[in-house]
Amino acid sequence: MNTFGQLFRVTTFGESHGPAIGCVIDGCPPGVSVAPEDFVDDLARRATGRSRHASQRHEADLVEILSGVYEGRTTGTPIALLVRNTDAKSKDYDNIAQTFRPGHADYTYWQKYGHRDPRGGGRSSARETTMRVAAAVIAKRWLLEKFGVRVRGYLAQIGDVVPRGFAWGDVEGNPFFWPDAAQAAELEGYMDALRKSGDSVGARINVVADGVPPGWGEPIYGKLDGELAAALMSINAVKGVEVGDGFASVAQHGSQHRDEITQDGFLSNHAGGILGGISTGQQVIVSAAFKPTSSLRLPARSLDLEGQPVEVVTHGRHDPCVGVRATPICEAMVALVLMDQALRHRAQCGDVGDVAPRIKPGKSKR
Amino acid sequence: MNTFGQLFRVTTFGESHGPAIGCVIDGCPPGVSVAPEDFVDDLARRATGRSRHASQRHEADLVEILSGVYEGRTTGTPIALLVRNTDAKSKDYDNIAQTFRPGHADYTYWQKYGHRDPRGGGRSSARETTMRVAAAVIAKRWLLEKFGVRVRGYLAQIGDVVPRGFAWGDVEGNPFFWPDAAQAAELEGYMDALRKSGDSVGARINVVADGVPPGWGEPIYGKLDGELAAALMSINAVKGVEVGDGFASVAQHGSQHRDEITQDGFLSNHAGGILGGISTGQQVIVSAAFKPTSSLRLPARSLDLEGQPVEVVTHGRHDPCVGVRATPICEAMVALVLMDQALRHRAQCGDVGDVAPRIKPGKSKR
Amino acid sequence: MNTFGQLFRVTTFGESHGPAIGCVIDGCPPGVSVAPEDFVDDLARRATGRSRHASQRHEADLVEILSGVYEGRTTGTPIALLVRNTDAKSKDYDNIAQTFRPGHADYTYWQKYGHRDPRGGGRSSARETTMRVAAAVIAKRWLLEKFGVRVRGYLAQIGDVVPRGFAWGDVEGNPFFWPDAAQAAELEGYMDALRKSGDSVGARINVVADGVPPGWGEPIYGKLDGELAAALMSINAVKGVEVGDGFASVAQHGSQHRDEITQDGFLSNHAGGILGGISTGQQVIVSAAFKPTSSLRLPARSLDLEGQPVEVVTHGRHDPCVGVRATPICEAMVALVLMDQALRHRAQCGDVGDVAPRIKPGKSKR
Amino acid sequence: MNTFGQLFRVTTFGESHGPAIGCVIDGCPPGVSVAPEDFVDDLARRATGRSRHASQRHEADLVEILSGVYEGRTTGTPIALLVRNTDAKSKDYDNIAQTFRPGHADYTYWQKYGHRDPRGGGRSSARETTMRVAAAVIAKRWLLEKFGVRVRGYLAQIGDVVPRGFAWGDVEGNPFFWPDAAQAAELEGYMDALRKSGDSVGARINVVADGVPPGWGEPIYGKLDGELAAALMSINAVKGVEVGDGFASVAQHGSQHRDEITQDGFLSNHAGGILGGISTGQQVIVSAAFKPTSSLRLPARSLDLEGQPVEVVTHGRHDPCVGVRATPICEAMVALVLMDQALRHRAQCGDVGDVAPRIKPGKSKR
Repeated sequence: MNTFGQLFRVTTFGESHGPAIGCVIDGCPPGVSVAPEDFVDDLARRATGRSRHASQRHEADLVEILSGVYEGRTTGTPIALLVRNTDAKSKDYDNIAQTFRPGHADYTYWQKYGHRDPRGGGRSSARETTMRVAAAVIAKRWLLEKFGVRVRGYLAQIGDVVPRGFAWGDVEGNPFFWPDAAQAAELEGYMDALRKSGDSVGARINVVADGVPPGWGEPIYGKLDGELAAALMSINAVKGVEVGDGFASVAQHGSQHRDEITQDGFLSNHAGGILGGISTGQQVIVSAAFKPTSSLRLPARSLDLEGQPVEVVTHGRHDPCVGVRATPICEAMVALVLMDQALRHRAQCGDVGDVAPRIKPGKSKR
Repeated sequence: MNTFGQLFRVTTFGESHGPAIGCVIDGCPPGVSVAPEDFVDDLARRATGRSRHASQRHEADLVEILSGVYEGRTTGTPIALLVRNTDAKSKDYDNIAQTFRPGHADYTYWQKYGHRDPRGGGRSSARETTMRVAAAVIAKRWLLEKFGVRVRGYLAQIGDVVPRGFAWGDVEGNPFFWPDAAQAAELEGYMDALRKSGDSVGARINVVADGVPPGWGEPIYGKLDGELAAALMSINAVKGVEVGDGFASVAQHGSQHRDEITQDGFLSNHAGGILGGISTGQQVIVSAAFKPTSSLRLPARSLDLEGQPVEVVTHGRHDPCVGVRATPICEAMVALVLMDQALRHRAQCGDVGDVAPRIKPGKSKR
Repeated sequence: MNTFGQLFRVTTFGESHGPAIGCVIDGCPPGVSVAPEDFVDDLARRATGRSRHASQRHEADLVEILSGVYEGRTTGTPIALLVRNTDAKSKDYDNIAQTFRPGHADYTYWQKYGHRDPRGGGRSSARETTMRVAAAVIAKRWLLEKFGVRVRGYLAQIGDVVPRGFAWGDVEGNPFFWPDAAQAAELEGYMDALRKSGDSVGARINVVADGVPPGWGEPIYGKLDGELAAALMSINAVKGVEVGDGFASVAQHGSQHRDEITQDGFLSNHAGGILGGISTGQQVIVSAAFKPTSSLRLPARSLDLEGQPVEVVTHGRHDPCVGVRATPICEAMVALVLMDQALRHRAQCGDVGDVAPRIKPGKSKR
Repeated sequence: MNTFGQLFRVTTFGESHGPAIGCVIDGCPPGVSVAPEDFVDDLARRATGRSRHASQRHEADLVEILSGVYEGRTTGTPIALLVRNTDAKSKDYDNIAQTFRPGHADYTYWQKYGHRDPRGGGRSSARETTMRVAAAVIAKRWLLEKFGVRVRGYLAQIGDVVPRGFAWGDVEGNPFFWPDAAQAAELEGYMDALRKSGDSVGARINVVADGVPPGWGEPIYGKLDGELAAALMSINAVKGVEVGDGFASVAQHGSQHRDEITQDGFLSNHAGGILGGISTGQQVIVSAAFKPTSSLRLPARSLDLEGQPVEVVTHGRHDPCVGVRATPICEAMVALVLMDQALRHRAQCGDVGDVAPRIKPGKSKR
C-alpha cells in the first residue's frame, strides 16, 4: 500500500537514509509539459533546512526524470522521479536502533515486520513526503490548466497561537506559511523559545481549493471528503481532519449549518464545498491537525529491544513544530485527490453534458 | 466506488425507496458461523423508528442470506445479503424532485450524473448504512473469535451537551447510546425541545476498539488511521474525524503528547493506539463529528430545477439529530477497517512469528 | 475476487442451487436505458434447457432490477440484478457431497476452503455465468450506442467438426451458434450420438468485435489482449485463449504475420486487431478452447472424503458439450472488457483529440 | 496499469532508450534475503547479446537496490530496483519516428496518446521485461524457500521445429532453452539460415511449476489460470495461452480429458494442475505462443505520419526469433502470479488448517 490514487496512481519508495527516494506516477494524461526545474519551487517550500525553525538537514532535492516524459511532455507511460539522498547522517541515529522512541513508529514497525531500518526513521520518516510534493507538481499543473483549479494552504494555528488577520499574499512571505505578516516577529520569538525549551508543539494547516467544478467525488466509499480525509491522515503526525466546519458542526444547529442557496449563489460554506461526497462548485476547504513531534531534548521513558527500561533523548536534527513545513504537503495531498477524482469523474460521467442550473459558488470564505 | 475494503470487500447497493437494499461481502474467510438472526440486534440498534427521537420510518430490516453460507457457515464465496424496503413512502418526497434541498446531495448528484432518483434521497440516504452494519456483524464476530477484538461506541456530545460520567454499562440502556444514565431525562427534554423547535443539532461519536494486536495497518497510504478516517468520513453527515487526541494535539506540547513506555505498559494513549499508521496494541480510539441534519420544518431558501428561487420546508420523517442512531454505524466502519487490515497483515506478514518485546497496552482510557 | 473490471465493475454472487444468483454493476455511466425485458434474449440464448443438446435444467431466468435504475435509465449508482433459482434439484447431487468428481472443482474448493457447498457444483457451477451475460447486456448497449461497437460470436469447432462455410446470418438460426446452416443435420446427429455414448467433447468459440476504435487498451499489465485472455480463461471449462492467429503464429514467418498497411487500410489481420496491447481499429478477434465436460455416464475412478476409492457416475442433468451454449458467455466477457477499457481510455486520454492519420480497418475477416 | 499483482505488486517503469528502467515491488513479505548479485543469473538468461541468435544490444543490466532492503533482508517496505540503460543507440531508430512499423505498437500508441517516444519502441519495447525478471527473482526465492515451489520453462517449438527428446538437464545448456541437446546443431543451422533470410519465426514456450500446493487461486475472476493467462498475454508478442492440454482439449472426449484419481494420485494431468481456477497440487503447466517479430530486413508497406505510403526496412538490432530468450520472462510471470496467489490465499484462508484427504500429484508430465 505504497500507492496513492485509483487512476492517477502515485507509488512512492525509499527510506530516510537509504540511497534514494522516488516515485512512479501511473495514469497521468499524455501531453502535460514537465521539466526537472518544475519541481524546484515546491520541493524548496517543503524542504528542511530552509530556516532555523526547521530540521537542519540540507538536501539538494534534485529531481531526475527517469521515464514517461519525451521532448518535455508526458507520454502517458509511467513517470518515474528519483531524488538521491545526500545529507543522511546515519550515525546520528545509531542509538535509536536499540530503543523504541515514544511517539514514533519504531515499536509498531518492529512488531509488524519483525525487522526494520532504523536510520532516520526509515520508511516512516517524513522524507517520504518529498515525493508526494513532487508528484503533486504535475497534478497541480494539470488541474490549473484544464479546469483553473488552484490549491493553496496556510498554517492556521501553532500551539495556541492563531492568525489575527488573513491575506493570501502574506502566506509565502514568511517561513511559516502564516497568513498575517504582522505576526511574523511574534512567531519567530515563539519558535525560538520553543526550540530553547527542548519541547515541541502541534499545528493546524488549512487547505483551500478554488475552481473545483461541481460533480467531483464518488459516492459511497470514494467520496471526495472521504478520500481527502484518508489523504491528509496519511501524512506523518496528522491526528485529525476536518471538512468545512468540521468539529464545530457538533454544536451547530441545522438552520445555521445548512448552506442556503439563492440566484447569487450559496450564501455560506459550512459544508466546505462538499455535499454527499461530491463537490458543490464552492471552495473545497479542509483542515489537518498535526501533533507535536516526539523527538525532544527532554528525556522520556521507554524500553529497549530486550524490554529493559531506557531513557530516550534526541540529539539529532528535528523540527520543534512539524507543522511549519507541512503546508506544501497538505496542498499536495489535496491536489492528488482532486486529480484522481477528476479522472474518475470523466471516466464514468464523460457522457453527461452541461447540466443546468449551475449554482454560483458565492462569496469566497478565504 | 460502492465497494469498501481491499481484502474484506463490502459492496453495497440500493436506494432509500427502491425495492431493496443489499450488499455482497467478498473475501470473507470460510468457516464463520452466520445465520439470519445474527443481524437482528445490530440492525435494531441502528434502525429508525425505535424511539420518538429518531425518524419515524418503520422498516422490518429482515436480512435474507442469498449466497456464500452453507449449513450455517461461510464457504469463502461471496455472501449476498438482501433487505427489502417495506415502509418507503415516496409521495412524501414528490416535491423534492423539483428542488435542491440545502445541505443535501440533491444538487451534487444532479450535477454529477445529470439524472437522479429523488425518492427519499435515493442513494445518498442513510438507509445505505443498514448494509454496512449488517456486513460488520460478520466482521465483528470474526474479530472477536479470532483475536478477542471488541468494537464499541457511544455518543460523546450532542449540541453542547457532554457526558458528565462514563460507564460502558449505561450506553446500551438509553436510546442515545449515552454513557451517563443519570443524564437520560435531561437528554430526553433536550431532544423534545429541539424537535418542537423544528431545528436540529450535531453530535460527536466516539468508538473504542479493545484487543487490537500491535502490527495492524499498512504504511504509507493504507495506514490504519488513514483508513479509519476514510471509513468514518464516508458516513453521511460526518464532517470531521479524530484519532486519539485529534485536534487537541494542536495546542499540546510534545512532552505531554508522546506516550511514554515502561515495563507496566504505555503510560498514556494520546495517540489513540496508532503510531506510523500501525496499531500499538493499545485501545484504538477514534471520533467522528456529525453535522446537524438539514431537513427542517424551518424554511430555507433554495433554487428549483429551472434555477428559480423556492422555499424549502421538510414535512417528511427525519431525525432532529442524526448522531442519535449513528453509533452502530461508526462501530461498523471501524470493525470493517480492522477486519480488512487483519487480513492484509497476515497476507504480507504471516511469516513473521512472535516478536519480542511486547509492550503492555497500559490502563484503558475508556 | 468475484468482481470483474476496474471501472465498469461487475460483482457476481450466488451458487447453483442457492436461493438466487445476482450481480452488482458499479461504475456504469448514467443515462443508459435499461428495463427487465432487455435481458430476456441474451439469457435465453445462454440458457440451459433450450434444446435437447443442452442440460435439461429449466430456469425462468427472470431478472429483477433492485437498484441503480430510475425511470428506465441508469442513475450512475450501483445496479443490482437478481435472478431467483427455481429449478434446482439438489437431491440429484446428494452423492456428490461425499466424493471428488474427476475434472471438477470439488477437490480444489475442498482443499482451499475446508468446506464447500456441493449442490450442483455450488459456486463453481456455470450457473454463475448467467449474471455475466446479464451485465453484458448493458455494456453491449452502451458500446453500440456510443461507438457502434458490435460483439458477436460463433461455435468454430466441436470435437473434430469444423464449419465448412461461414455466414453471420446462419449463427442464430440453429441451437449451436454454428455459422454454416448446411451442417445443421450433421451436427444434430453428431450430438445425438455423443449423448447416447455417455461421453462429451470439447469446442472452440470465436468472438469478433466490430467497430472498436484505435487506442483502447492499457499497456503494460492492462493490455486489451491480456484482459481478454483473463476474461475468457475465467469462464468455466476454458483451457486456452488466442488473439488473432494465436498458436498458428508459432509456425509463421514475420513476413507473413505482420499486417502491412496501405492507404486502403490494413491488408490483413493476423494480429486480431491488437498491437502492443492496444486496439488498431480493425476487428478484434479472439478464440477460446473449451474442454469436454467431465460429468459423464461413463464411470470414473476417484476418492471419497475419507480418501477411499470410489466409482463416480453422473446421472444428473448435464451438457454433452458445454461449448454449445457458451457463445453468449464469450461474447459477454469480450463486451465487459471493451466497456471497461473504453472508460479507462477516456479517463486517461480524454484530453487527446482526434489523432491523424487514421488507418482504415481493411477488409473484415469475418 | 503498469502494476502487476494484487498483493505482491510490481510496478515497472522506463523506456527502451530512456535513462533507466526500474520497478517498485510493494507487499513483499519482510525477512527475505536479497542482494544485488542475486539478479545476475536470471537477467543474463534473459539478456540480449548473449549469443549471435539474439539482438546484439549489450546491456550491463546492473541492478541497484534503492530501498526496501536493510542488512540484506527485505523490510516489508517497497523495494525499488533500478537498471541504467547503457547501450541505447537511438540514432538507429530516428527513421522510425516518422512511420508506423507494421506489426508494432507505433500506430496504436500514437492513436491512444497522440504523442510517443519512438526510440527503440519506447515503453512497448521488450526491454521492460527485464524488470519482470528481476522482480521474479525475489518471488522465486520466497516460493522455493517457503513451499518448495520451483518454476521452470523451456522452448517447446520454434517455427515448425519441435523437440524430439526431453530432459530438464539439457535446457540450460544451449542458448535456446531447448530440452533436447541432440538438436543443438540443427537449431543453430535453422537460426543462421533464418537470420540470413532476413525473416523471423514464432515460438512456443512451456512453463512448469512443481510443488504448488492445492488451494491456490481465487474463483471467479481471480482464477489461477485466468491470472496466468493475463500474465503471459501481457508479454510482448504473445498471441495465445494454454493451460494443460489447451486447444487440444477441443477435439478430446471427456472420458479422455478428465484426470481420474486413485490412492496413488492423479492418473493424468490434462488439466494442467488447475480445476475451477484453483491448483490441484499437480504440476501447473502453461504454454505461450510468440508471434514472429515484425522487424525484418525484408521491406514492408506502411504509412508515415502524414498518411503517405512508405516502405519500412529494419536495419537496427533485432531478434530473428523473440522466443529464443523469452523463457525466463515466461517463468517470471508464472512466478509472480504464484507469489501473489500464495499471499491472497493465506489472507483469506489462513484460518483453514490441514485439509484431508490429500491427493498425490501423480507422475510428473515433465
